[in-house]
Amino acid sequence: MAIPFADRLNNVETSAIRELFKLLGKPGIISFAGGFPDSALFDVDGIREASLAALAQEPGAALQYGATEGYGPLREQIAAFMNGKGAAVAPEQLIVTTGSQQALDLLGKTLIGPGDKVIVEGPTFLATIQCFRLYGADLISAPLDEEGVDVDRLERLIVEHRPKFVYLIPTFGNPSGRMLGLARRRRILELAVQHKTIVVEDDPYGDLYFGEAPPPSLLALSPSVPGSADLLVHCGSLSKVLSPGLRVGWMVAPAELLAKATMCKQFSDANTSTFAQAVAGQYLKSGRMPETLAHVRRVYAERARAMADALRQELGQAVSFVEPQGGLFIWARLTGMDGGPTDGAAFSKRAVEQGVAFVPGAPFFASHPDHATFRMSFATVGVDKIQEGVARLLKALH
Amino acid sequence: MAIPFADRLNNVETSAIRELFKLLGKPGIISFAGGFPDSALFDVDGIREASLAALAQEPGAALQYGATEGYGPLREQIAAFMNGKGAAVAPEQLIVTTGSQQALDLLGKTLIGPGDKVIVEGPTFLATIQCFRLYGADLISAPLDEEGVDVDRLERLIVEHRPKFVYLIPTFGNPSGRMLGLARRRRILELAVQHKTIVVEDDPYGDLYFGEAPPPSLLALSPSVPGSADLLVHCGSLSKVLSPGLRVGWMVAPAELLAKATMCKQFSDANTSTFAQAVAGQYLKSGRMPETLAHVRRVYAERARAMADALRQELGQAVSFVEPQGGLFIWARLTGMDGGPTDGAAFSKRAVEQGVAFVPGAPFFASHPDHATFRMSFATVGVDKIQEGVARLLKALH
Repeated sequence: MAIPFADRLNNVETSAIRELFKLLGKPGIISFAGGFPDSALFDVDGIREASLAALAQEPGAALQYGATEGYGPLREQIAAFMNGKGAAVAPEQLIVTTGSQQALDLLGKTLIGPGDKVIVEGPTFLATIQCFRLYGADLISAPLDEEGVDVDRLERLIVEHRPKFVYLIPTFGNPSGRMLGLARRRRILELAVQHKTIVVEDDPYGDLYFGEAPPPSLLALSPSVPGSADLLVHCGSLSKVLSPGLRVGWMVAPAELLAKATMCKQFSDANTSTFAQAVAGQYLKSGRMPETLAHVRRVYAERARAMADALRQELGQAVSFVEPQGGLFIWARLTGMDGGPTDGAAFSKRAVEQGVAFVPGAPFFASHPDHATFRMSFATVGVDKIQEGVARLLKALH
Repeated sequence: MAIPFADRLNNVETSAIRELFKLLGKPGIISFAGGFPDSALFDVDGIREASLAALAQEPGAALQYGATEGYGPLREQIAAFMNGKGAAVAPEQLIVTTGSQQALDLLGKTLIGPGDKVIVEGPTFLATIQCFRLYGADLISAPLDEEGVDVDRLERLIVEHRPKFVYLIPTFGNPSGRMLGLARRRRILELAVQHKTIVVEDDPYGDLYFGEAPPPSLLALSPSVPGSADLLVHCGSLSKVLSPGLRVGWMVAPAELLAKATMCKQFSDANTSTFAQAVAGQYLKSGRMPETLAHVRRVYAERARAMADALRQELGQAVSFVEPQGGLFIWARLTGMDGGPTDGAAFSKRAVEQGVAFVPGAPFFASHPDHATFRMSFATVGVDKIQEGVARLLKALH
C-alpha cells in the first residue's frame, strides 16, 4: 500500500548535500564539508563534573519530566550568560529548546501557514530552508554583501512581500561567515518597528569570534530602538561552543509568542532532556565557560587563518572570499579567472576525486542560487591537514 | 502589534487540566493528578554509572551531533530490548525520538493534513489529541469497554471515515488503564490489512504490569498476521520505566514512513540528545534493566491495589472502575448512585477543597466526552497517603 503522506512533504526534498556526505567514507579524504564543531575541543572533564553534580544535587528533578519552558536552574544560567553578553534577559523571557533547530521548528509551527512569505538571507542555513518549507513557507532571499545582508534591498523586499518574519544569522552566519555591521543592526531593528515586521536573530556562532568581539546582538541592541523588542526573536545555543550532543538551545521572544511556542513544544517533545538541561546548568554554574570559549576561539582562529592563507596562496585569483572574523566557515566563490571552473557542484565532485571534500553553495539559496559558490569548514581539521587539503583543491581546479 | 499566528493554532486550546495544576501548590494537598512516574524509584546509581561509562568510552560521539535516526549503540540496545519482549526488530527498523511525544509529532507531520480523519480511543492521551489537532486532524473517538477498544465499533468507524490512521494505546493506556485482549489484538491487525489502514500502537506502559505479562504487543504479533507489519507503527519509551528526563523514545515503522519521519526529525531537532542516548545505551547494556523493571512493577502494583481497595471501601457504589493490571492510572466513573455526584469536573473542584486532587475525564475525549469520568494516578503517592487521599475523596463526595 502507498502510505498516504501529508501534502507538506512535497515542499522539501532530500538534500543534495546528504548525497555528497555518502562519499565522505572514502579513505584518506580530508573533509571541509561538515558543519560540526571539533569534538576534540569538548570539555569532557567539565561535563563529567557537571553530570555528577546534577545527579548528586538534583537527581529527582534531573531525571523527571520538567516544565516545557525549560528547567528552572538552566533558564537562570542562560539568562546570566546572555546578560554577560549585554542582553538584559530574565529567565522567564526565554524557553529552552532541543537545540536551536527546535526553535526554528517552533517558529514555523506558530507562525507559518501554507503560502506565507518569509525573508531569509541568500545564502542561509540549509535546515532553516527545509524546516520553514515543511510548514508551507514561500521563502524570499535577501542578498548579502561583504558586511552581511544588504539592508536597503531587505527593506524593499519587506515592503514588497509583507513577510510573516525576517530570519537572519547576523554574526558569522552558516554558510556565509559574514558579520553584520553595527549600523546595519540598528537599521534592521528600525525596519522591524517601521514595517511592523518580526525579525528572528539566529545566533549560534556569535561567541566564536577570533579577534575583537562582534557588535552587540540585535537582542542586546533592541532596548535602544523603542518598540523593537516586541518584534524580536533571538535563538541561542550551546551546540557550537560547548557540545551539540546536549541539544540545549534557547529562544527569547515576546511573551505572547513565547507562550504559543511553549504550547507547541509541549506537543512536540514535552520538554528538552531534563538531564541534559541539568548538566548544562551545572556546567554554566561551574564557571568553566569563559576558559572553554577562549580555548575554542583560539583554535578556530588559527585554523581559519591557515585556511584563508592557503586559499590565497594556492588558489589565488581563481577563488574570492571574505576572510571570516569568527564562526566555522569560509564561504568562497569561483571567479572563473585564468580559465578556472565556475560551478561549485562540479568542482566539489572533482575535489572528492582528489581526496578533499567541501559543500557546493547552491543549495544554501532559497531562490536565485549562485552556482559559483561553495562552503568550506575549517573547524575539525588541523592546520597541516588544512594546508594539504587546499593543495589538493588546487589539483581539482585544473 | 498583534502577532500574525498561523491558523493551525486555532485548533487547540490551553487545556483545562493545566488550569487545575495551578491549584496543586496548595499546602498539604495529596495529588493523584499527575501523569509522572515516581522520581524516588529512579535508578540514580545506575544512571550515574552509565553517564561515566559514556563519557569514558565514547566522549567525542556522545557530545557531538549524531545521526538523526538515532545513536547507533542505543538503537542496538533498544532492538535487543524489544527482541526480549518478543518483537523481532532490527536496529535500522527503528528511530530514536525525543520521548515518544516526538514520535506522535512526527506522525502528525508526515501523515496529517488539514481535515484528515484520525481514529483514537475515547478516552485517549491528552497530548495526542492536541498534537494531532495542531496538524489539522479531525479526530474520531472509538469507544472502550472493560477489555479496551471495542473492535466491532472500531471497524465500523474505519469503514465510515477512511482515516489516515488509527491510534491506540493497547496496554494500560493513559488514561483508561485498560488492557486489550489477545483476540482483539489479532483482530486489529486483521482490520489494518483488510481496510488498508495504518495502525499506531503507542506502548509506554506495557512493561509496567503487576501480575502476569500482558498479551504480546501488536508489533510482536504482526508477523503472525501477513501484511500487517507494513501497516504498523509502534512507539516505545524509557520514560515510564527508567527516566522521563532522558527523553528517549523510539518508533518502529515501515521503511518508507521511517525515512520521511527521519527527514522531518532532521528539521525538528536534528537529533535527540546524543548524550542522553549514550547514557541510555550504556544503561541498557549494563544489564540493570530487569531489576529496575521488577522494582517499579512491585511498587506500582502495591499502590494500585491500595487505591483500588480504598476506592471500593470508601466510595462503594458511587464510583465504578476496572482495577488496572498495570500502568499508572485508575480510570473511574461517577455512577450517581445514592445521590452522589455525576460530574467529574465539579467533583474535582470539591476534592481540591478537601485536600486531594485528580483530573476530570472529559478532556481526554476527542469527541462525545463522558463527563462522569475522572483519572487518578497512584504512581507517586505512598500507600498511607493513598488511603488518606481516598478518605478525603469521600468527604468531597457528599
